Amino acid sequence: MKTVLIVCDGMGDRPTKALNGLTPLQAADAYTFNKIASLGECGIMDVIAPGQPPGSDTAHLAIFGYDPYTQYSGRGAYEALGAGLDLKPGEVAFRCNFATVSDEGIIIDRRAGRITTEEARILAEALKDIKLEDAESIFVSTTEHRGVLVLRGDKLSRMVSDVDVHEVGVKIGKPKPLDGSIEAEHTAKVLEEFITKARKILEEHPLNKERIAKGLRPANAVLPRGAGTLPNVKPISGIWNIKAAAIAGGALYKGIAKALGFDLINVPGATGTVNTNLKAKIQYTIDALKKYDLVFLHIKATDTVSHDKNPVKKKEVIEWISHEITPLVDLIESQGYYLALTADHTTPSEIGEHRGDPVPLAIMGPNVRRDWIEKFDELSCARGSICRIKGVDLMKILMNYLDKVPLFGE
Amino acid sequence: MKTVLIVCDGMGDRPTKALNGLTPLQAADAYTFNKIASLGECGIMDVIAPGQPPGSDTAHLAIFGYDPYTQYSGRGAYEALGAGLDLKPGEVAFRCNFATVSDEGIIIDRRAGRITTEEARILAEALKDIKLEDAESIFVSTTEHRGVLVLRGDKLSRMVSDVDVHEVGVKIGKPKPLDGSIEAEHTAKVLEEFITKARKILEEHPLNKERIAKGLRPANAVLPRGAGTLPNVKPISGIWNIKAAAIAGGALYKGIAKALGFDLINVPGATGTVNTNLKAKIQYTIDALKKYDLVFLHIKATDTVSHDKNPVKKKEVIEWISHEITPLVDLIESQGYYLALTADHTTPSEIGEHRGDPVPLAIMGPNVRRDWIEKFDELSCARGSICRIKGVDLMKILMNYLDKVPLFGE
Repeated sequence: MKTVLIVCDGMGDRPTKALNGLTPLQAADAYTFNKIASLGECGIMDVIAPGQPPGSDTAHLAIFGYDPYTQYSGRGAYEALGAGLDLKPGEVAFRCNFATVSDEGIIIDRRAGRITTEEARILAEALKDIKLEDAESIFVSTTEHRGVLVLRGDKLSRMVSDVDVHEVGVKIGKPKPLDGSIEAEHTAKVLEEFITKARKILEEHPLNKERIAKGLRPANAVLPRGAGTLPNVKPISGIWNIKAAAIAGGALYKGIAKALGFDLINVPGATGTVNTNLKAKIQYTIDALKKYDLVFLHIKATDTVSHDKNPVKKKEVIEWISHEITPLVDLIESQGYYLALTADHTTPSEIGEHRGDPVPLAIMGPNVRRDWIEKFDELSCARGSICRIKGVDLMKILMNYLDKVPLFGE
Repeated sequence: MKTVLIVCDGMGDRPTKALNGLTPLQAADAYTFNKIASLGECGIMDVIAPGQPPGSDTAHLAIFGYDPYTQYSGRGAYEALGAGLDLKPGEVAFRCNFATVSDEGIIIDRRAGRITTEEARILAEALKDIKLEDAESIFVSTTEHRGVLVLRGDKLSRMVSDVDVHEVGVKIGKPKPLDGSIEAEHTAKVLEEFITKARKILEEHPLNKERIAKGLRPANAVLPRGAGTLPNVKPISGIWNIKAAAIAGGALYKGIAKALGFDLINVPGATGTVNTNLKAKIQYTIDALKKYDLVFLHIKATDTVSHDKNPVKKKEVIEWISHEITPLVDLIESQGYYLALTADHTTPSEIGEHRGDPVPLAIMGPNVRRDWIEKFDELSCARGSICRIKGVDLMKILMNYLDKVPLFGE
C-alpha cells in the first residue's frame, strides 16, 4: 500500500470579484481534481489551527504530522538544507537577502536592484574569506538576491532578531538577542560581526563598482532573517516505518522534507515557479512510487499567482495542474494506491498574503468512505464525510490507511 | 434525567466488496438504529484521535471521558477486575495465556491446544502454591486458555515487557524492564521467577501428562502480557455526581467499568460473544434505569464477527442488535430519557483488525438538535449536526443533557 500527498501551495482562497463571487477552485474546470473528490472522501483542514495563518514552514511541519507549536525551530535551517548545505545540530542558519543600503546605512532596496543569480554567486564567493572571531561562517547564494548563511561554533542560539525586517527606508538594524541567554547574546554579536565584515567586502567588490558605474544598485549588504536550527525530531520514515520521498522545486520545501527525513528526488526543470516542468515532476512521482511508500509532491505555482493577486490566473493554474496530474491519478486508481490532495494554506488572491481559513482536502483510495462530493473546492469539500480536521492529524489518517499506525492500548 | 450509552464493539467499518461497496451498517436493515438517528442528532467520532487505531481499553477510557494519553495504565488491571479479583493500588496485573512450549522453550501454541475452561481451572489451582521470594502471586483462570496474574508486594511497576508477543515459533522471552527504574527491574525478576516456577509445576501436572497421552498439547507455560495497574482517577460517579451502572459480557469491559467506578450489573447468559443473551441484557438495562442515571451497555458481537472477517454476518448481527434494543429505545422515547449509540472503534471486516477511522454516533433525547439524518451509518452520520468530535468529549456532551456539567466561569 502506498500513498501520494499532493500539496498545491496557497491553493485555498476566498470568493473573488474577478470570478463573480467564486473562489478560483470553484470557478476552475478541473476534471481530475473533481475526480479525486468524487472517488474519495472530502473535508476541510485547519492546517495549524482555526483562523491561524500558517507560514510555509510551519504548514508543512503540520501536514507531515509534526506539531508546529512544539517542533518548529525557525525557517533558516530549512533554507540551508534546501540550498544543499549540510547543517549540523548546534549550527544556526539564516535566510538572507543581498540588499542595497546607503552610506548612512538606510535600506534602499531589499533585493539589490534584482541582482542576477550569477552576480550573486560571484559576490557570495568573496564572502567566503570572512573570518569571525568566535565562529565560522558559511555563505551561499541561491536564486537571484537570495542566499543562506550558516554560523558554526560553540554556544550558538537561534534566538536572535531578524536584520531584514521586510522594510525599506529604515536603518539597517543590529541583531538583538531574543531571550536572556548567553548563547543568544553571543550569536547576536557573531552575526553583527558577519554583517559588518560582509558590508565592507561588498562595498569594495569590483562587481558592485561596475554596477554603480552602470547606474545599477549595488548589492552592498547582506540582510539575514529567520534564524533556525535543525528540528530535533524523529525522521518521518522512522515514525511510520516507511520509505518517504519528496519532489519539490522550491528550496524551502526541499529543506523541510530533508530535515524530516524524506529522500529528495531532484527533477530537472522543477523550479518552484509557474514555469516549472510539471510534466516531469508527475513522471518522477510515478517512478518514485516503485520504491517509496509515501511520495510528497509540492506544487508552488498556485501560491505564486495568489501573491500576484491574480485570481483569474490562479483558476488557470489550477486547471493546468488538474490536467497534468491525470496520469498520476489514473495510476493510483488502477494500482489501488491512496492519494491526498490539499493545500498548505489559504492565500486569498485579492489580498496576496497567507490567511488562516481552512483548506480543502480529498483522499481517494481503496475502501475510503467515499462520499457524495463531486467537486474539489473550499465549499464543496466542507460538506464531505471528513468534516473538519487539523493539519497535524492528516499524516496519521493516511498512515492508518497504509496499516502503519500501531494500536494504542490493546 | 437519565441516559443510556450503547457501545457496539468494533461496529465502524469501511465499504466492503461482499456488500457491494457498502459498510455493514449501510447495508443493514436496522429499523431501530435508524430510528435513533432519525429522532436524534448525528455525527462521527474519533475515539482516540484521527487515524489512531484504539485498543478496546483506551477506547473505553476515552468514551467514559478519561484522556487515554494521560490516564491509561495498562490492560492487566482491567482484566483482573473483570475476572473478579480485588486489585489494590501498587499491585501489577497481567493478562495471561496458557500455552504450549517445547522442551527447548519454543512457543508452539499460544492457546495450549484450546484447553477447556475446566482444565484451566484445575491447572490454575495448582499455581496457587507458588511462593515467590519478594512478592506474592495470585493467579486465576477465566475462560478457556485465558487467565490473570496479579503480583502483590513492594516496589512493583507496570513497566515490564510482554512475555506473550502474539507469535509462535519464537523462544519464550524473559520479561524486561521498560524503563530505568529499580521497580521495573525488580518486577521483571519477580515475573520471571513466577513464569519459571509455573512452568515446572505445569510440566509435572497429571492433567498435562494425560493430555500428552491423549495426543493433546499440554498447557505447560503461562505467558503474561499487558502489565497494568489501577488507573489513578476519580470515579465517574464522583466526577458527574451520578449513579452509573455497566452491563457487559466481556471481562475486559466489566473491568474497565469497575475501575472507573461503575456498578457492575451481572446478567445471566451475557457471554461477550455472538451467543450472548441480548434480550436479558436489554431487560436488565431497562430495569437499571429505575436506579441509575447512566447505564452503559456493551455489546461485543459486532467486533467478534469483524475479527472473523465476515461483513455479511456483521450486517446480520447489526440487524439483530437493532431489533433487540427496540423495547429499550421505546422506553427511552416514552420516558424522555437520552440514548447515545456508537462504537468503540472501527474494525474493517475485510481486515479483521482495529483501525483508526472514525465511528458513527447518534444521540436522541428531549430537545436534542434533531437533524436531517435518517440512517445510522458511517457516511450518513458524517452529514449530521454533531459533525466530528473526539471520544473523550462524548461523556461531557451526555452529562450536559443531564444538567450535570457545572458552569466554567460565571
